[in-house]
Amino acid sequence: MLVVMKAQATREEIQAVCDHIEALGYRAHPLPGAQRTAIGITGNQGEVDRGNLEEMAGVAEVIRVSKPYKLVSRDVKEEDTVIRFAGTDATIGGAKVAMIAGPCSVESREQAFTIAEQVALAGAQFFRGGAYKPRTSPYAFQGLGEEALKIMAEIRERMGLRIVTEAIDHEALELVAEYADVIQIGARNMQNFSLLKAAGRKRKPVLLKRGLAATLDEFLMAAEYIMSEGNYEVILCERGVRTFADHTRNTLDLSIVPAVQRLSHLPILVDPSHGTGQRNKVLPMARGAIAVGADGLIVEVHHQPDKALSDGMQSILPEQFAQLMDECSQIAAVLHRRVPRGIHAEENAAVAVSAR
Amino acid sequence: MLVVMKAQATREEIQAVCDHIEALGYRAHPLPGAQRTAIGITGNQGEVDRGNLEEMAGVAEVIRVSKPYKLVSRDVKEEDTVIRFAGTDATIGGAKVAMIAGPCSVESREQAFTIAEQVALAGAQFFRGGAYKPRTSPYAFQGLGEEALKIMAEIRERMGLRIVTEAIDHEALELVAEYADVIQIGARNMQNFSLLKAAGRKRKPVLLKRGLAATLDEFLMAAEYIMSEGNYEVILCERGVRTFADHTRNTLDLSIVPAVQRLSHLPILVDPSHGTGQRNKVLPMARGAIAVGADGLIVEVHHQPDKALSDGMQSILPEQFAQLMDECSQIAAVLHRRVPRGIHAEENAAVAVSAR
Amino acid sequence: MLVVMKAQATREEIQAVCDHIEALGYRAHPLPGAQRTAIGITGNQGEVDRGNLEEMAGVAEVIRVSKPYKLVSRDVKEEDTVIRFAGTDATIGGAKVAMIAGPCSVESREQAFTIAEQVALAGAQFFRGGAYKPRTSPYAFQGLGEEALKIMAEIRERMGLRIVTEAIDHEALELVAEYADVIQIGARNMQNFSLLKAAGRKRKPVLLKRGLAATLDEFLMAAEYIMSEGNYEVILCERGVRTFADHTRNTLDLSIVPAVQRLSHLPILVDPSHGTGQRNKVLPMARGAIAVGADGLIVEVHHQPDKALSDGMQSILPEQFAQLMDECSQIAAVLHRRVPRGIHAEENAAVAVSAR
Amino acid sequence: MLVVMKAQATREEIQAVCDHIEALGYRAHPLPGAQRTAIGITGNQGEVDRGNLEEMAGVAEVIRVSKPYKLVSRDVKEEDTVIRFAGTDATIGGAKVAMIAGPCSVESREQAFTIAEQVALAGAQFFRGGAYKPRTSPYAFQGLGEEALKIMAEIRERMGLRIVTEAIDHEALELVAEYADVIQIGARNMQNFSLLKAAGRKRKPVLLKRGLAATLDEFLMAAEYIMSEGNYEVILCERGVRTFADHTRNTLDLSIVPAVQRLSHLPILVDPSHGTGQRNKVLPMARGAIAVGADGLIVEVHHQPDKALSDGMQSILPEQFAQLMDECSQIAAVLHRRVPRGIHAEENAAVAVSAR
Repeated sequence: MLVVMKAQATREEIQAVCDHIEALGYRAHPLPGAQRTAIGITGNQGEVDRGNLEEMAGVAEVIRVSKPYKLVSRDVKEEDTVIRFAGTDATIGGAKVAMIAGPCSVESREQAFTIAEQVALAGAQFFRGGAYKPRTSPYAFQGLGEEALKIMAEIRERMGLRIVTEAIDHEALELVAEYADVIQIGARNMQNFSLLKAAGRKRKPVLLKRGLAATLDEFLMAAEYIMSEGNYEVILCERGVRTFADHTRNTLDLSIVPAVQRLSHLPILVDPSHGTGQRNKVLPMARGAIAVGADGLIVEVHHQPDKALSDGMQSILPEQFAQLMDECSQIAAVLHRRVPRGIHAEENAAVAVSAR
Repeated sequence: MLVVMKAQATREEIQAVCDHIEALGYRAHPLPGAQRTAIGITGNQGEVDRGNLEEMAGVAEVIRVSKPYKLVSRDVKEEDTVIRFAGTDATIGGAKVAMIAGPCSVESREQAFTIAEQVALAGAQFFRGGAYKPRTSPYAFQGLGEEALKIMAEIRERMGLRIVTEAIDHEALELVAEYADVIQIGARNMQNFSLLKAAGRKRKPVLLKRGLAATLDEFLMAAEYIMSEGNYEVILCERGVRTFADHTRNTLDLSIVPAVQRLSHLPILVDPSHGTGQRNKVLPMARGAIAVGADGLIVEVHHQPDKALSDGMQSILPEQFAQLMDECSQIAAVLHRRVPRGIHAEENAAVAVSAR
Repeated sequence: MLVVMKAQATREEIQAVCDHIEALGYRAHPLPGAQRTAIGITGNQGEVDRGNLEEMAGVAEVIRVSKPYKLVSRDVKEEDTVIRFAGTDATIGGAKVAMIAGPCSVESREQAFTIAEQVALAGAQFFRGGAYKPRTSPYAFQGLGEEALKIMAEIRERMGLRIVTEAIDHEALELVAEYADVIQIGARNMQNFSLLKAAGRKRKPVLLKRGLAATLDEFLMAAEYIMSEGNYEVILCERGVRTFADHTRNTLDLSIVPAVQRLSHLPILVDPSHGTGQRNKVLPMARGAIAVGADGLIVEVHHQPDKALSDGMQSILPEQFAQLMDECSQIAAVLHRRVPRGIHAEENAAVAVSAR
Repeated sequence: MLVVMKAQATREEIQAVCDHIEALGYRAHPLPGAQRTAIGITGNQGEVDRGNLEEMAGVAEVIRVSKPYKLVSRDVKEEDTVIRFAGTDATIGGAKVAMIAGPCSVESREQAFTIAEQVALAGAQFFRGGAYKPRTSPYAFQGLGEEALKIMAEIRERMGLRIVTEAIDHEALELVAEYADVIQIGARNMQNFSLLKAAGRKRKPVLLKRGLAATLDEFLMAAEYIMSEGNYEVILCERGVRTFADHTRNTLDLSIVPAVQRLSHLPILVDPSHGTGQRNKVLPMARGAIAVGADGLIVEVHHQPDKALSDGMQSILPEQFAQLMDECSQIAAVLHRRVPRGIHAEENAAVAVSAR
């Protein structure tokens, strides 16, 4: 904390602020400048409440200095967090780039298997599909629930794809933690602290999406919530923020990728589907995300986007996803990174086809 | 829905779009213009997925026309919703202006009673106090929980003040619905649809705060979620939105008050405390809110803001709240509205003092 | 300036940063904290470039402390600036509230006089009318230019109203400075520094509108540009900023009124017409502006908004303006301020009618 | 234009709106829907003023359909605009990717030549350098003016680099148009319509930067202003927009690249220096820009960023620029595009060195 005094603040006013700080149990460090005096505060464990300081005579401004997060920070752990998945060589974080693909919602066994085969063939190691959908309208399709989770568990069994799916509340969390490999917390729940803490008590990795209006600090603090409960496997994900710009549904803020990587050891993915809301922008923004250094992508793919029960307009076709995988692999190579292309992807898909 | 074709779209392309619309089961209405053709879509119950339309040859743009909300709309109910509280003449909505005041958090019985007496003396009919606090940091004070609810129930009993407090999750919701008079859903939970539905199944009024990045449509849709479960007593509340402006913690968007009143029959309050984050801006913005026509205010008051365990910097002192009540009453009168000043406020406070 | 070191920064790294600061000619003040060390910088005249500091080993962050503006600041001049207009008792700034009204564009002598009479009758002391219009489209009506200035000069002569009109470039500035009483600089030109400096060399008051994405600091710095050339009569004006909110054309940020008044001695007005872009929101937001403490309003009025050549949808009718004057006067009284109601408004209007 | 009626609008109200539209000289096309009636408007040349329509009985909303720009649109010209520079094979637009690099400000002949050699050696075909600087503070370095232009003209002569520099006002424009190859219009002047029109009367290409709060439509309309005066060589440039996000100085909105390319034939570049404001984010965002399909980059390079008179913190070092060129070339290849690497870059640089 730093208290900046007004240019015309008197010595008495400066002393009064110092006294007040010391009375709160901290140490005050007056710093006389050419025009103004600033007073540093040290010795505080958490945040000093600045309400009263701001109201004291002669005070111009109070500025917060130290960051409130700890466990997410490279200050605490310098090397990148790499999340591993038993029984596979799939990872999230580190040198390899993780690719997660699948439909917005699981709509039927048929639909999910068809898309899963396609994304596995293209080389994805992770399958995403919504079982519980946070919809803006109460009258819209809300997901198949546990039935969808069972279908995805079967996809994992038959094709080896690891499963990523969203938990929208505590009830869903219990089931998602049971069936899935990665628990997704959606953007609208990024500050649902009760859900974050509950996810922090699970022993499955958590993919945390950035809220529509979340600053970098708030995003990292949300991850801190999960980690503070003992779950250190957190994956961050940029999915577009709310701005005045109206040519895309959200503004995909790719600059947060290097910003996160500078401050935190956690992996950061990008979702170009929600990040743009438009099919024709998914491929270019996916390439852009890999080029800035994202640790992976999460992409919506649908073989019949026209008939999708949710978000069809931003889903790409399986053949577009194959192109995305090709182009992103080439770009990753420029950064000396590798996009692993499935584990025996072809065989798995073949097995899967015969199994239906 | 309206599909706008490109200037150079061919007749075949226009026909193909019309055919596609009809194949989806809707009716297509081509509208040839001087430069372009637009095609109206009717017959759809919900939203038409626009993904495929946007990708068709010759299509320039797809525009959504109809609004997705129903129950919140003046289309369904023209007259203002007025929420009444049994055993009092307190109301929210309609001609009278409702005043809700109290500390950010209930910190102790002593603190809560002291503040409650002060705000009752100043004329407030409603007491607010946090029992469960959604804090950005997991290491910050999280509220006293049920103990705080009991203290507030006692305040209602002794002073007649109606109680407003936030439910941050399902567990808290059960207790809040039991103890409080109004269930508050915070800004961070505005799109926690699971919580909204649960609140919709309670039979207590719900005060719903606008999310930090919520459009008017999303705000009304969140209210629709609650109403769709059968709870029609929803109170909206503007509390500032996230913008680039950095001179206040949030940007208090007072223009949403007349915008809501034009579209919806629900009451709309303003929270100048969170809306500015600065004690010295609460009074002016409170006056502004009443002047634009808000149906009431929710204000943080603390007798020792310096020692508050949360949000002290935005809490006003009891004497500032008294001034706020005076000035807001005078401004309400200009709009031919009245700020009721407590029910026997003085006697209640006297009783309360003797009861401690 | 304050350099915040990382938690694990070494003594050598801290020393290197101090040495670097001293090498730049400033003084370094290391402030060891419980977790981190911060280093204060003093002795700099202007802004220290922080590029290299941020890149030094062990540095976590560099924070700017002192404000770059001087002349606009209450640090330099504590009492409110009051701008007077010779030959009238009209003022802008101080205890009285200034009302400026008129059409978006001067379209004809007939139109301008009709509206001027109406706003004078309602009590406005200032007339606004566009002679040069900054239009988003090159194909839209661009204003009558000098002809409009002459019409407005005649309005001043006959009715005593002081004239406010926008200068969109250097050429227009010369003429506006000659004919008008107040030179308006529009939001789109708030950082047209060349125009600001030129306006600073004129000896007429300048009404400076806040840019659509201007922070408070940038807004004050733009005023500083004008003042740095020797023109101390600057009037600030909030007119809405660009946000994600889509229920109004812009988001009118009324909280900037008390924020400006805290930092600067300059008067601050509000424009509820551009600030909302919707006729039905002008009156409520005008009331809100006066209630937060604005030093005046600038409002678009048109007797035939339907036929207006620009911005008809946000212009209010003369009778709505009369109601606005009444309600704002009553609200100003609550703040112990007064809205002067014209100088012999009735007589002037009568004279004007006979003069046509 | 489309007028959406309320659900409960009467037949008389619908008829009245149609009559009003026809009275304005347009054609009304009522479109009865399941819940509401919408009324299409055709026959209008420019924009229909919607003020009165919105106020008519039974009207819920008025929606604008057609786009106001013409010359910038692919509706008018389908193939990409390619700008050529006589006497070189340098181009902007089309298959090749253009690289523009140099210091924020030209500070001296020595400094400019040193940097020019370095960027030429790395393969840039264009040199950028500020002669006139739009600075937020009137007390900051404002550029060397014509002296800087002369230095850059000499750089062109000796090294073959084409020169890009900003014109901040009419006076500067005259000189920039005389000395430079590309006239830059800065973000703060994107809606300085007077300057846009003047640039439109020059016969040099204009590089137009997106304003900090400009929508895609406004950006294209600003280009339309230039083109409407007869100058068809306009180059668009994304340089970051103003949002709530505080981890970068601006939020670089890469999604506007494919959005522009879909609507317009004009080339679109990206400025990762201003777009991030931080040296350590320039390289990743530069790669991202090329990966999304940008037609080129404009990058700040300084050999002594620490001593730079402006924007040192976002300038990269010459060796970082060389790396940027390498990595961007590789990424461009993935998109089947080529980054030309100078015309005889090595020889030119050698000549330049001997010439000093």
